[in-house]
Amino acid sequence: MTNPIFAAIAPPLRVLMGPGPSDVHPRVLEAFARPTVGHLDPYYLQVMGELQQMLRQVFRTDNPMTLAISGTGSAGMEATVVNLIEPGDRMVVGVNGVFGGRMAEVATRAGAEVTRIEKPWGEVFSAAEVAEAVEKVRPKVVGIVMAETSTGAWQPIEEISRIVHDAGALLLVDAVTSLGGVPVEVDAWQIDAIYSGTQKCLSCPPGLSPVSFGPRAMEAMQRRKHKVQSWYLDISLLASYWGEERVYHHTAPINMTYALHEALRMVLEEGLEASFARHLRNHEGLRAGLQALGIDFTAAEGNRLPMLNAVKIPDGVDDARLRKDLLNLFGIEIGAGLGVFKGKVWRIGLMGHASRTRNVLLFLAALEQLLESQGRPSVGGASIAAANAVFAQA
Amino acid sequence: MTNPIFAAIAPPLRVLMGPGPSDVHPRVLEAFARPTVGHLDPYYLQVMGELQQMLRQVFRTDNPMTLAISGTGSAGMEATVVNLIEPGDRMVVGVNGVFGGRMAEVATRAGAEVTRIEKPWGEVFSAAEVAEAVEKVRPKVVGIVMAETSTGAWQPIEEISRIVHDAGALLLVDAVTSLGGVPVEVDAWQIDAIYSGTQKCLSCPPGLSPVSFGPRAMEAMQRRKHKVQSWYLDISLLASYWGEERVYHHTAPINMTYALHEALRMVLEEGLEASFARHLRNHEGLRAGLQALGIDFTAAEGNRLPMLNAVKIPDGVDDARLRKDLLNLFGIEIGAGLGVFKGKVWRIGLMGHASRTRNVLLFLAALEQLLESQGRPSVGGASIAAANAVFAQA
Repeated sequence: MTNPIFAAIAPPLRVLMGPGPSDVHPRVLEAFARPTVGHLDPYYLQVMGELQQMLRQVFRTDNPMTLAISGTGSAGMEATVVNLIEPGDRMVVGVNGVFGGRMAEVATRAGAEVTRIEKPWGEVFSAAEVAEAVEKVRPKVVGIVMAETSTGAWQPIEEISRIVHDAGALLLVDAVTSLGGVPVEVDAWQIDAIYSGTQKCLSCPPGLSPVSFGPRAMEAMQRRKHKVQSWYLDISLLASYWGEERVYHHTAPINMTYALHEALRMVLEEGLEASFARHLRNHEGLRAGLQALGIDFTAAEGNRLPMLNAVKIPDGVDDARLRKDLLNLFGIEIGAGLGVFKGKVWRIGLMGHASRTRNVLLFLAALEQLLESQGRPSVGGASIAAANAVFAQA
Repeated sequence: MTNPIFAAIAPPLRVLMGPGPSDVHPRVLEAFARPTVGHLDPYYLQVMGELQQMLRQVFRTDNPMTLAISGTGSAGMEATVVNLIEPGDRMVVGVNGVFGGRMAEVATRAGAEVTRIEKPWGEVFSAAEVAEAVEKVRPKVVGIVMAETSTGAWQPIEEISRIVHDAGALLLVDAVTSLGGVPVEVDAWQIDAIYSGTQKCLSCPPGLSPVSFGPRAMEAMQRRKHKVQSWYLDISLLASYWGEERVYHHTAPINMTYALHEALRMVLEEGLEASFARHLRNHEGLRAGLQALGIDFTAAEGNRLPMLNAVKIPDGVDDARLRKDLLNLFGIEIGAGLGVFKGKVWRIGLMGHASRTRNVLLFLAALEQLLESQGRPSVGGASIAAANAVFAQA
C-alpha cells in the first residue's frame, strides 16, 4: 500500500448553472463551519425544531411530520415510497423523464405493483390521463414529479390531486427541483407525501432531503401490516427522534443541518413570493436571450420550469466541447442531457442563489462567444439585448 | 401559518466526550465551508478518487470497492446488509449491545432469516461461540460489531474471520467506532464487508459512512438473483458513479465530502499507529483516574475499547443531574446509557481529536467536583494524580 497524502481541498470557483447543486451563498457555507455539537445537545434539538418550522413554511403546510431525511433527494424519494408502500400495493407512477422512471424503480424494489403511465419527455400529464389510469388500476399511491429535472417540464398538481383523492388514493409528489422556486402548496393542494432536495432552489449544498407527510399518509403508515423495509428511513422511528420523545435513532448530520437552517433563513428573509418572482424574471430574460440565438426549449410553452431550462442543442454544435469551454474559460457549469436527451439537450439551471440577472447575462455572453468559436454566425450581442429588454420591463 | 425567522446558527462550544460526534478540528470545519462544485465537476471527481485512496489506507485494504455512502453510519450498516442479503438468506448476528441488535433488525427487514447469538452486554463473543452458531446455521453472512458503542466492548475479529470463511460464509463487520482508533485490518483479517462512521475516531462531523467490500462480497453481489431492495444504497449502481464510468446516480453531498477528505488527511498525517497509541494512552490515563474515584468499567479488562469508556454510575449519583452539570458548567458532553444500561452507565468518549490528555484531565477534575456536589466524599484530587502518573510514564 502506498501512503499518499493529498493536498487540502481548494475547489475552483464555479458559477453553478446546472441541474443542481446550485450556487451557495457564503452565509450558508459559513454556517457549515460552525462548531459541531452532539445530536442530543439541547442546542441541536432547538435547531431541529426551528428547521421543522421553517420547512413547514416553505412547504406551506402544518403537517407535524415535516423533517429532513439524512440523505440526498433520492433518499427522500426512497423514504416516502418505502413508508407508503407495502409489498403487493398498487402504485401508479407518471414517467416523462429520468426521475419518474426512478420513482417507478424505487417503488418496484419496495414490492409495489407499479403501473407506469408514460408521456414523451418534455410533456406533462393531463388530469384526464391520470384519471384514466387511476380508474383502471385503483392504486394505493399515485406518484408524480412536479419538476422533471431531466426535461424542464412543469407538471401541474392541483387538479391531479383531486382526482387521486376522489379515487381514495394517496398523492406522492417529487418537489426536488421545484421547492422554493415556484409555488408548492402542500396543504392547499392536499399533497399526502412530498420530498425535496437542498441543492436546488434552497441553495444549500446537497446532503439532506426535506420531506412532509400529511394526515392521510400518516394513517396509511399506521395501518401498515409489515415493517418498513428500510430501518434507516423508517418514519415511525424517525418520528420519535424528531418528536418530543427525542429517542436516539441515528446520529444526525449536525453541520449539514446548520447549513440547511441558514439556507432556509435566507429563503424566508427574501420571502417565497419574491423568490418565485425572481426565478420567473430570470427565466424570462434567459428565454429571450436564447430565442435570439435560435435556441428552443424541450418543454412546451406554459409548462416550462423557470429554474431548470432544458433546451435543444443547435445542430452542428459540439456538446461536450461547448460545456467544457464554458467550465474552463468561464467557470460556468451547465448540465448535460440525461437518458434519451443525452447529447441533444442542455440543462441550464437558474436555481436559488444562482438565479441572478448577472448570471443570465454572463451565460448568454459566454454562449454567444462559444457558439461563434464553433463556427456559428455571430448574432452581434443580440442575446444580451433581448435579455436586457426583458429585465428593463421588470 | 406564522412566519418566524430564527436567529443564525451559533452553537455553544462543547467538549465532545460522548459516543460521537467527537470534537472536530477547525481544519475540518473550514474544509466544510469551501465553495461547492458540481457532483460531476472534474475537481470533485478528483476529490472522490483521493477520498477512496485515503479510505483504503485507513481500512488497510486494496479493495477497489471502497467508498463513502451518502448517509450516516446506520446507512452504511443498511448498505452492507441489503447488498449482501437476498430474501431467505440465512444470517448470524452477534448481539451484545444496541448495535448488534440493530444489525439483526436491519437484516430481518432485508428478508434474511436471522439467527441472533447473544451475550450479556459488556461481554464479547469467543471464536468457539461463533463456530457453534455457524456450524448449526450454515449462514451466508455473519455480522459482528467490532466496537459496541453501547457497552464499550472490543470484539476480536481475526479468529472469527477464519471460522466464518472455513464455513464458506461472508464476514460483515461494524467498525463505526473502531476505525482510526484501534487497528482495523480489512485485508489481513479478510473482512468481506465493513462499514464505519465519520464522527468517531475520524473526527469529522456525521453524515457519511465509509464502507469497503472485498472480492468474496463482490462475487456474492454479482450472483444476486434479486435487485437490492434499496435503490439509494445499491452498490452496483454506486459503483458506476465511483468507478471510471462516472455515471450519475444521486447528487453527492459535496461539502460533507470535503470535510471527510480533510479529516482523513489529518488521520494520515498523524499516522494510524500514532493515533492508536494516543487513543490507548489517553484511555489508560482516564482509567487510572476513574479507578481512583472507585468507578468501574462495564467491559472486562482486556476487552475495553480505548475510545469508548462505558463505566458504571456510582450508587446514589443522580445520572441526569451530573450529565447536565457537566454540560452546563463545563461544556462537556458525555453519553448516557442505552437500552438496559439506561441510568446505569456513562459512556465517555475519547475519540479522534477529542482523545487528548487535556480532555482527560479536565473531565476528571470536573467529575471530582460534581461527585462532591452530590455528597460523595472528596478524594482530594486523587483522580488527577492517578492520571498524571500514567501520563508521566508514557
